[in-house]
Amino acid sequence: MKNTLSQMRNHASSIFSAGLEAVNPADAVKNSCVFNGQELVCGDQTYNLGQYQNIIILGAGKAAAPMAQAIEKMLGSIITKGLVNVKYEHLATLNWIEINEAGHPVPDASGKQGAQKAFELATSASAKDLVICLISGGASALWPLPVAGITLQDKQKTTDILLSCGATINEINIIRKHLSLIKGGRLAQIASPATLICLILSDVVGDDLDVIASGPTVPDSSTFGDCITVIEKYNLQDQLPLSVFEYLKAGLHDKSKETPKKNSPVFKKVNNIIIGNNLAAIKAAEKTATQLGYNTLILSSMIEGETRVVAGVHTAIAKEIIKSGHPVSRPACILSGGETTVTIRGNGKGGRNQEFVLAALPDIAGRDHTVILSAGTDGTDGPTDAAGAFVDSESFQKACQKGLCPDKALGQNDSYTFFKELDDLLITGPTNTNVMDLRIMLVK
Amino acid sequence: MKNTLSQMRNHASSIFSAGLEAVNPADAVKNSCVFNGQELVCGDQTYNLGQYQNIIILGAGKAAAPMAQAIEKMLGSIITKGLVNVKYEHLATLNWIEINEAGHPVPDASGKQGAQKAFELATSASAKDLVICLISGGASALWPLPVAGITLQDKQKTTDILLSCGATINEINIIRKHLSLIKGGRLAQIASPATLICLILSDVVGDDLDVIASGPTVPDSSTFGDCITVIEKYNLQDQLPLSVFEYLKAGLHDKSKETPKKNSPVFKKVNNIIIGNNLAAIKAAEKTATQLGYNTLILSSMIEGETRVVAGVHTAIAKEIIKSGHPVSRPACILSGGETTVTIRGNGKGGRNQEFVLAALPDIAGRDHTVILSAGTDGTDGPTDAAGAFVDSESFQKACQKGLCPDKALGQNDSYTFFKELDDLLITGPTNTNVMDLRIMLVK
Repeated sequence: MKNTLSQMRNHASSIFSAGLEAVNPADAVKNSCVFNGQELVCGDQTYNLGQYQNIIILGAGKAAAPMAQAIEKMLGSIITKGLVNVKYEHLATLNWIEINEAGHPVPDASGKQGAQKAFELATSASAKDLVICLISGGASALWPLPVAGITLQDKQKTTDILLSCGATINEINIIRKHLSLIKGGRLAQIASPATLICLILSDVVGDDLDVIASGPTVPDSSTFGDCITVIEKYNLQDQLPLSVFEYLKAGLHDKSKETPKKNSPVFKKVNNIIIGNNLAAIKAAEKTATQLGYNTLILSSMIEGETRVVAGVHTAIAKEIIKSGHPVSRPACILSGGETTVTIRGNGKGGRNQEFVLAALPDIAGRDHTVILSAGTDGTDGPTDAAGAFVDSESFQKACQKGLCPDKALGQNDSYTFFKELDDLLITGPTNTNVMDLRIMLVK
Repeated sequence: MKNTLSQMRNHASSIFSAGLEAVNPADAVKNSCVFNGQELVCGDQTYNLGQYQNIIILGAGKAAAPMAQAIEKMLGSIITKGLVNVKYEHLATLNWIEINEAGHPVPDASGKQGAQKAFELATSASAKDLVICLISGGASALWPLPVAGITLQDKQKTTDILLSCGATINEINIIRKHLSLIKGGRLAQIASPATLICLILSDVVGDDLDVIASGPTVPDSSTFGDCITVIEKYNLQDQLPLSVFEYLKAGLHDKSKETPKKNSPVFKKVNNIIIGNNLAAIKAAEKTATQLGYNTLILSSMIEGETRVVAGVHTAIAKEIIKSGHPVSRPACILSGGETTVTIRGNGKGGRNQEFVLAALPDIAGRDHTVILSAGTDGTDGPTDAAGAFVDSESFQKACQKGLCPDKALGQNDSYTFFKELDDLLITGPTNTNVMDLRIMLVK
């Protein structure tokens, strides 16, 4: 029994690692673009690099440094110039592309400075130039460039007000896109008439291109009119910074300020490619799980919702596997991904992945061999040093013996403390990638 | 498009009906017991009915009448006597078995009277007799027989106090079993030394025998000590009716009052058989879905949790089917069962099935052909005349055109009004069975 479970834990680790590897930023770049010294094939398009005067690399996000490094390895001295904005200490050695460290998740002056420089590089690009854009999770905060007359502080205050009034993330993004010189398709607009390839590592459920990093190279479907509708809906006229409200009102009557739309010619030479996402990680995990002998089922890469309820649905599937061999027979591996939420009820320390595993623990207690692993692909889960946690069908008993109570820990959202004492944390350190969370459930 | 969706709705209806048919109480009895005029084969055991002096039928539950009718059709005049307690108006024509109408969900005097008579019939059974017990959903309330000195009102008050103090259903059942002359294995105890066959239609997630109808023919693992632990945990010493508290305290020191345990000889001649459950309905639904050409996946028959979050997990799977063909490729049918919960936030009218479908509606709006049906197998969903509701990928638009807002209706838990106006209710009338809910999701 002990041996089976410990072997299954090793399997879960291997399956998770395989998922991570598939979304390694450098590999993701290499797997989606091939250069033969003359032609660069990206996705379904081929670019003859000899025909471009300048090749400019721009990028932002937590994975921008390794992505830039991969592009340098591929194109080398062909690169004319470039600049990537990365989170502090998320560095890599680069030869042709400049690297600029900036604040995340709260944008700072360094971020704005880098964004300004990226804006100028894009503006300078001509019809004879190729711009390669590298986007990954965090790009929104790492490329902060408000329109003239609005400060970073005004923009931040606007976001805070929208968050606290209960506006949806979609409503917040409508306004943020209209206050930015980069988001909402603006980057494509300023880079036009240059050719633009955008390589995107998606950290968003469903991979909506206009949501990832607020869609700098993607048509925006929202308008200044929508911004005013949101403001009126939540009665924010008197709360927003005056500069913001005045700018948005003025935008109503100035078509030149509007974000570029679907049929705009600025997107004619734009090629947006998702080079890595949660599903890619899950598919790689599936391959390894199958090799390890598990009947493997991908549930969905788009699972959201309150963590403990989502955990309950997962354990209901584990119980059904044991009871009837549905949806797959044993040895079974169920894979899912996405990003759940946690309603904070207590003062504990934890993250959504650790909470998921904690909520699942009592349900699998004492049942046939079951192991559950949930972890963030970026190597961090909430404000903790763990990526996630492990649990198996003997963990409940083990916890009781140590005087740990899963119910109580869950009530306090104290999953980190619980799993630290149980020695069941998964600690990977920063992985330099981010495609949300992976959940692995093994039943033998 | 319209034709495809309306065809898919018909398919969903047929799949649901197939599920219902499989758990039709009369058929479930016929499918699990076969009588050749001499031998009765029930499950894996064979009974030579010639060797019994009396054959006594006892039963309670919403499906007790059709179950009794099926037994009468099978055994006819071999039956010595019998009595079933049914919900008011849940009748059937019976010749040898008496039928007694009683209160549900709140027990009443008629229920107690019937339970008392059942108790006497069981007590009268000797080693030469066969007792056949018919259990279905609602049996717990329809067979109320408190121990001497405790009134129905005391027992009801105790339940109310336990519910309002936040005790778990498991904790509540521990106490209820110890206050009853029938629950917690007591019926087996009083029927002993007779032979006992118990045919059970399960309305409980996971089909735990000691939970269905509080396990009248099943060993009880809880003790009077556990009762006192629960009372002390919630500090109920001064709140409970004195008769209840005194009885439970006295039980601590009187082993004759304890419920029968696992190794008790009273269970030697007991054969508990689940003749129908949620999984049986799902499996029948699966068969029909497969015949209709769908790649069909049974997710789990044991899904619980907050309805809207569970709905989100289901639609995440629908989205993945459309995106990547996982967990099954199109045309796909996902089946699940169990019983979710609804946290009441508004003053609307609805049930968990209608709320499930309402919560799912925006997620599938405008996507490829998708149809979702969720309904209670008993034909009722919450305090409404509907069993559940339908929705498809065009319903959102249809609702908007009618001025109906799904978000607002969900906020008010007003799913019934919403679907009534949308003309998307599923109304079956009482089905005379109950194996919880069925959810069907079709994606083409």
